[in-house]
Amino acid sequence: MNIEGKHYRTIWSDGESVFVIDQTKLPHKFEVVVWRSVEDAAHGIRSMIVRGAPLIGAAAAYGMALAMRAKPSDEALQHAYDLLVRSRPTAVNLRWALDRMSGLLKALSPSERTDAGYREALSIADEDAKNCSVLGERGLLLFSEAWNRLDQKRPLQILTHCNAGWLAAVDWGTALAPIYKAFNAGIPLHVWVDETRPRNQGASLTAWELSHHGVPHTLIADNTGGHLMQHGMVDLCIVGSDRTTAAGDVCNKIGTYLKALAAHANGVPFYVALPFSSIDWELQDGLKEIPIEERSSEEVTRITGKTAAGEVVTVTIGPEGTRAANFAFDVTPARYVTALITERGICTASAKGLAQLRDR
Amino acid sequence: MNIEGKHYRTIWSDGESVFVIDQTKLPHKFEVVVWRSVEDAAHGIRSMIVRGAPLIGAAAAYGMALAMRAKPSDEALQHAYDLLVRSRPTAVNLRWALDRMSGLLKALSPSERTDAGYREALSIADEDAKNCSVLGERGLLLFSEAWNRLDQKRPLQILTHCNAGWLAAVDWGTALAPIYKAFNAGIPLHVWVDETRPRNQGASLTAWELSHHGVPHTLIADNTGGHLMQHGMVDLCIVGSDRTTAAGDVCNKIGTYLKALAAHANGVPFYVALPFSSIDWELQDGLKEIPIEERSSEEVTRITGKTAAGEVVTVTIGPEGTRAANFAFDVTPARYVTALITERGICTASAKGLAQLRDR
Repeated sequence: MNIEGKHYRTIWSDGESVFVIDQTKLPHKFEVVVWRSVEDAAHGIRSMIVRGAPLIGAAAAYGMALAMRAKPSDEALQHAYDLLVRSRPTAVNLRWALDRMSGLLKALSPSERTDAGYREALSIADEDAKNCSVLGERGLLLFSEAWNRLDQKRPLQILTHCNAGWLAAVDWGTALAPIYKAFNAGIPLHVWVDETRPRNQGASLTAWELSHHGVPHTLIADNTGGHLMQHGMVDLCIVGSDRTTAAGDVCNKIGTYLKALAAHANGVPFYVALPFSSIDWELQDGLKEIPIEERSSEEVTRITGKTAAGEVVTVTIGPEGTRAANFAFDVTPARYVTALITERGICTASAKGLAQLRDR
Repeated sequence: MNIEGKHYRTIWSDGESVFVIDQTKLPHKFEVVVWRSVEDAAHGIRSMIVRGAPLIGAAAAYGMALAMRAKPSDEALQHAYDLLVRSRPTAVNLRWALDRMSGLLKALSPSERTDAGYREALSIADEDAKNCSVLGERGLLLFSEAWNRLDQKRPLQILTHCNAGWLAAVDWGTALAPIYKAFNAGIPLHVWVDETRPRNQGASLTAWELSHHGVPHTLIADNTGGHLMQHGMVDLCIVGSDRTTAAGDVCNKIGTYLKALAAHANGVPFYVALPFSSIDWELQDGLKEIPIEERSSEEVTRITGKTAAGEVVTVTIGPEGTRAANFAFDVTPARYVTALITERGICTASAKGLAQLRDR
């Protein structure tokens, strides 16, 4: 997608180093970080310099390539795998990408591994960009139908949570891909952007992305969506997914479940957009089987912003010493999901729906 | 309630000036503001130096007393009423307190109005403190039953949203009154405190109150409650109400509705604690009939906290120029409310339940 007229992906390589947009600095600063080692990559994933399920997969793949450049041994391969797989616990396509890289590299002689590693990482990135574009086209059909149901009389009102835009992927994004495609196709729309506490990915990333693309949007506190849906101010919700079970349960950013409940209670369609690689076919019951990442208390009690003087500072909210809990994700049971939108097609959030797409 | 061993109310007078705790400065600074005119009072209510339905009523009453001290004429009385009634649109006991003051003062000669004004404002404050204490005792019975249902085996897990503590009232609070009473009675408990964006009353006020009273609590992002309830980590929810319709619909801080939906979906009791004066007997359907206050966009895009150097600063989050919507309240339909807790008793959230308490 474009930033100030220049096309960017979230991750790229010159064949040696790997370059990523530092998402912890947005929206206040646009900075590109250089990774020169697998440790850099693991740190970048852990510290959320890069985040979003699809991008984490591509980043882990490039991490493996960096490891092979340093030392293409079997031990180094295993070490890189172990290091990267632990960097974030929820995104299932982190493991998917690592398994794909590892499978390919193990079958090669050490001397072939470096070049092959970069090639395969690029393939994963290219495929992700293509998949998100296709996913966006499929979602566009749903959006177009929704707009027709409004008799095309007013802009389509969309609510999204967290950031599942191009910053969460390599390009296009998942939940935001249909929004970009619909906007590009001339469907008038407006996006309600949940700020998405505690890390504010909505305020920091989604609002930033949408403004760079010119998509009309309004930032709201996470508390607001229920009220909007009660009053007919949301025509559809669309979010991403970090892990989707074979039965269609969706593990996504904390707070997704609350919006799904509100959508369900108010007859608002609730769509989840995801790359097929983020489906965990081994799991059924997301509530029981998906471990939820708990992150630092300080992500809740501290917040970063810009002062009137233009300085970016981190401040503590709440009383000194307040203890906070920070569950990063929640699980939305399949029954609250209207449909899953993937690059392979759209299906019901159910074992049957997903299996049909898988076996297509 | 106590701060550093000294008993405070949120509002008091020396017979001339009126003193209030500046809630916009908490939790970083404890400051008492002096009001010397009705304009000071109106400004204090509008700018949320004082907030919370019960406290707004008492503050408006003292505002009338200040107006009478300046000029006890009929015109001044009407002017004060008009000024104060517009200062916040949602809290129905703002109007209730003003009507009570106005009715009393109008019947008196101008020379009697100043003394009578201060006396009546103090009565309103005293009654509020007493009502909240009684309400707390009634809620304590529910908490005690809930703890018995756990066989007294572990601390009672309570979730609250916004601040309906003593800072929202004159003393004790509404939703927090049963928590304080239960804590004082030795029932082990732990409170999940929703930070309550955009103004962070949970993080700034509820966490501050609870820590000063020694009540165990954990701050959470507003997105978290659904996840906690899905996993059996909340035994009951309790919140306040800014306006309750005669049919039991509850208008409270934005986001309350989302927690009520999650409580309903997970079989968690959802209690609303309110002074009887906050019931709007003229309204039935809260969703259709209660106008929702919209506040400044900057309350969403700017946040105040303390730097590492101890300086209190306000920072902007999100990209420069981001537009935000700021609906301050939402309406929770009566069907999601397990019971209403008032100083007159506990009832179902229904026209019948409320009428029975009224006519008792």
